[in-house]
Amino acid sequence: MKYSTIPSAQTVAHYCKIYGIKEIVISPGSRNAPLTITFTEDDYFNCFSVVDERCAAFFALGMAQQQQKPVAVICTSGSALLNYYPAISEAFYSDIPLVVISADRPPYKIDIGDGQTIRQDHVFDRHIGYSANLKLDVSHATETIKKQGKSLLSSSTSLENQQAQIEAYNDKELGQAFQLAIETMSPVHINVPFEEPLYNATTVPNHQPALVYKKPELDAVEDLTAFATSWNQAKRKLVLVGVAYPNAVAQEYLDFLATDKSVIVLTETTSNLHHPNFFTSIDSLIAPIEKSVNSDELFKKLQPDIVLTFGGLIVSKKIKNFLRTYKAGVHWHIDAKKAYDTFFSITHHFETSENTFFRSFIPKLKAIESDYYSYWSAVKRNYEVKRNQYLNEIPFSDMLAFSKIAKSIPKNYQLHLANSSTVRYAQLFAIDPSITVFCNRGTSGIDGSTSTAVGAAIYHQEPTLLITGDISFLYDSNGLWNKNIRSDFRVIVLNNDGGGIFRILPGQEDTANFETFFETTHAIDIAKLCSGYNILHEMVDNEKNLEKALINFYKGSKMPKLLEIKTPRLINNKILLSYFDFIS
Amino acid sequence: MKYSTIPSAQTVAHYCKIYGIKEIVISPGSRNAPLTITFTEDDYFNCFSVVDERCAAFFALGMAQQQQKPVAVICTSGSALLNYYPAISEAFYSDIPLVVISADRPPYKIDIGDGQTIRQDHVFDRHIGYSANLKLDVSHATETIKKQGKSLLSSSTSLENQQAQIEAYNDKELGQAFQLAIETMSPVHINVPFEEPLYNATTVPNHQPALVYKKPELDAVEDLTAFATSWNQAKRKLVLVGVAYPNAVAQEYLDFLATDKSVIVLTETTSNLHHPNFFTSIDSLIAPIEKSVNSDELFKKLQPDIVLTFGGLIVSKKIKNFLRTYKAGVHWHIDAKKAYDTFFSITHHFETSENTFFRSFIPKLKAIESDYYSYWSAVKRNYEVKRNQYLNEIPFSDMLAFSKIAKSIPKNYQLHLANSSTVRYAQLFAIDPSITVFCNRGTSGIDGSTSTAVGAAIYHQEPTLLITGDISFLYDSNGLWNKNIRSDFRVIVLNNDGGGIFRILPGQEDTANFETFFETTHAIDIAKLCSGYNILHEMVDNEKNLEKALINFYKGSKMPKLLEIKTPRLINNKILLSYFDFIS
Repeated sequence: MKYSTIPSAQTVAHYCKIYGIKEIVISPGSRNAPLTITFTEDDYFNCFSVVDERCAAFFALGMAQQQQKPVAVICTSGSALLNYYPAISEAFYSDIPLVVISADRPPYKIDIGDGQTIRQDHVFDRHIGYSANLKLDVSHATETIKKQGKSLLSSSTSLENQQAQIEAYNDKELGQAFQLAIETMSPVHINVPFEEPLYNATTVPNHQPALVYKKPELDAVEDLTAFATSWNQAKRKLVLVGVAYPNAVAQEYLDFLATDKSVIVLTETTSNLHHPNFFTSIDSLIAPIEKSVNSDELFKKLQPDIVLTFGGLIVSKKIKNFLRTYKAGVHWHIDAKKAYDTFFSITHHFETSENTFFRSFIPKLKAIESDYYSYWSAVKRNYEVKRNQYLNEIPFSDMLAFSKIAKSIPKNYQLHLANSSTVRYAQLFAIDPSITVFCNRGTSGIDGSTSTAVGAAIYHQEPTLLITGDISFLYDSNGLWNKNIRSDFRVIVLNNDGGGIFRILPGQEDTANFETFFETTHAIDIAKLCSGYNILHEMVDNEKNLEKALINFYKGSKMPKLLEIKTPRLINNKILLSYFDFIS
Repeated sequence: MKYSTIPSAQTVAHYCKIYGIKEIVISPGSRNAPLTITFTEDDYFNCFSVVDERCAAFFALGMAQQQQKPVAVICTSGSALLNYYPAISEAFYSDIPLVVISADRPPYKIDIGDGQTIRQDHVFDRHIGYSANLKLDVSHATETIKKQGKSLLSSSTSLENQQAQIEAYNDKELGQAFQLAIETMSPVHINVPFEEPLYNATTVPNHQPALVYKKPELDAVEDLTAFATSWNQAKRKLVLVGVAYPNAVAQEYLDFLATDKSVIVLTETTSNLHHPNFFTSIDSLIAPIEKSVNSDELFKKLQPDIVLTFGGLIVSKKIKNFLRTYKAGVHWHIDAKKAYDTFFSITHHFETSENTFFRSFIPKLKAIESDYYSYWSAVKRNYEVKRNQYLNEIPFSDMLAFSKIAKSIPKNYQLHLANSSTVRYAQLFAIDPSITVFCNRGTSGIDGSTSTAVGAAIYHQEPTLLITGDISFLYDSNGLWNKNIRSDFRVIVLNNDGGGIFRILPGQEDTANFETFFETTHAIDIAKLCSGYNILHEMVDNEKNLEKALINFYKGSKMPKLLEIKTPRLINNKILLSYFDFIS
């Protein structure tokens, strides 16, 4: 075992151990050598090398998402750090504890014209749980600094005392950062200044405070009697679930909600909870109402007395518009950390986990006569039948391809969906309940989908499939520059030659400007890129070949595989929009 | 001509015109549709589409660098914006007026669970000249907001009055941002919230304040008499030039400095100024002194009485170390905007342009007897002779390849150098004075070199060559996802299978950990990537083929060309380090 001779490098690694952080993603650099040496020489840690920091952070985010605990990313000084920002903002809004550790130059070298030097401290303060800006170890730096005609030492304190004060400060900062990351599932930033020499190593650790951290069990909920009374009197209760982890809510509670006649439960693919009575394709429910001549009347029929929400962000814009316009008198949100006022009508935030809430709430509930579920359930059966009819009629397209893919995914796969058309198409089709589904909906960016999926796959028992569009795939092509991609990793690219989402949005005309600045058509050969990155590639552009390709696609292979599905750019939007007409 | 119906979209475009900003780089999105429509439908603007915002910002940076005036980048809301940050920090430290225009959601939609929404205002405050956070047009937004049960209007003011106040505020903010960008050559951020509908257009402009902007001519310098007196008494004056634009200093002033016996002028490839008497390979001067047994004596002989610096950041670490350890009594810096205390000994900042300074200063100067130039000039002749000998002896390697490339570049080319080994190797070889040289030395990042060069090439009369290493090239491979790459654009990739710089740095051992986490070897096939991006590719791996390839490489072609030079990973560092021994 080897350690950097620099105390703070050792301390950072030591604190990672105390807080149980094993996964470390390192991007190359010289300033971070003290950290790289210390982490990679210690068998406690599983270290991964990813060069492009933008990808490295999303890769770590994917691992942290699956483990639901912190994963660290380490980079050198300068602009390297800023490339983490897209993933940090995703982590911030998706409550993923990404621990960003940046090596920095000593403070006296900032803004004096030294290379690879920026203002790193507090640079992510708009989207971070905590920014710990560690102090430079004087015990290590004094000699080097003296040579340059500077001094760090105050005359009144001895070197030992000053170093002890610095270590105490750094300990406190590290403790606060890691604790916050774990307890609030927030990204945190730890900035560590290092003075040269950077590469010296020792076998003797120096500063190792003996601490043990145990995450507090917070498992309480306020008195729910009054809330239960309201619930029991309400004939129309709408439960809406955003992004949620698989098994976040016990099935018995879901079954209870699913069979209450006064409740409808609306879920999305990313909700990861299942019951045949749930409404899984929200837009298929809402779009026909929007299009109806009796729109206002039907929306009032759907308008709930109580909206109960849990989980993260919601994909469907239509449900947000509906609940903002036809507000429920009461909106409750269950979440241990935060509650967004998504419909501008929130009335209460239950600060607890879903299971804790339902454990206390459900025994208090009583059935009430209502036709709320039965009425909308009939509507649902109707559009489900019509959707199947429609799929039998349409030509090869994004929508048809998606319906084939949805059926093809083997049981127990982990499925990642890119933004933005991909995750929206996914809402239209049933996916086997054994498949867990993820999408970066914190910021809903097109950046980082591939890297996130590659990272999320690392420790998953079963294989992982990423479904993405061509624009999102090309954006994160560096996600494939990663030696840790599992050979059973699978990618499906729906290549409609540009941002298909823009043809779906209202208001666009088919002009050269549209193709260049919105759709952004391109002439990039995905087969060749795959070959460059050592990924097996197959392309299909019709229904028959797609069906054939899907049979072999999931079979084992020595290298990861990518299936490119070329769909007709100009008709995809028409087929999707006609679907909503057809079911109306 | 068409405009978005949203007033602030029109106003932003109008202000760009007032301040003479014509080049607009747009990344696709829906929230920024009002800007995209307004800019792309107006022939005044030259609009470019680049999807990956990280590349888009560096591409714009390259254009702004060459034009030495602002270029705008426009993106949609959410994490898209954060991908600009690496280029913004480079612009901040390199004094390049990158104008970042981000579309945003209305403030009441921030942090309530809406998609693609982050905290955009002031997000770059650590590295930005100005953050203008525009206000939402109530005249356009009121209807939409009302539907969602919210209101923007205060009861005491009419809609018209409130809109007029908002426009006045936005005018003031835009004026301040643009003025600062132009007058201080700083990046600025303009955040513009838009409410739906986003795609409506009109042929009638609404709010167009009639203003004309003229950049003030600041061309004065303080009284230099006392400074001239000091200068005239000093026998050893060292002039050191960092990154500078071609023709930033009149040749007559350079000639004067070059022929003063008490002056030595140290330049770097990125200084872009030339005289046979200048010392162009700083490390070849300093390294032999470091290695000498009489090191202290020789450094004291080189130690100047006065250091005069101008230009931006300096590549050579050795000169920085020398001047920090052997401080000059006096350090003056000439720059209209800022002066870094790079050697911890700055005594005066002349806040003016180099030409203005020298116009006033040089007439006051008198010759003084000194052997400062003649002594070090002899040293220089010696290492130049030895370098030629050395190059005749060494095997195929990064260093030998670089010497061949340096000689091959056609006159008047624009040359871009990536970080970090590339720009360091470039310091060792003479490059024809007609060639202009650029490198992102503001933050010295490996990110964005390709995109910057592609952007810088756009309007250059002659072709552009980018020299880069494999890691920097792969990092910015999305730089090739750009329909605006000129067919005469040329790239040379020195592919030593990893970060060659890490083998050069002291303190590394040759272990598996080193190869994975520092050097980061890879197995990516650059030929295949080129083919995917429609770039002609040729690979050479020996001296003879390199010489042959260079003959045809610069000839005209229908597609851009990339020459990949594979060099032996394990010996490159030894050859470079032995060079410094050889000349010592």
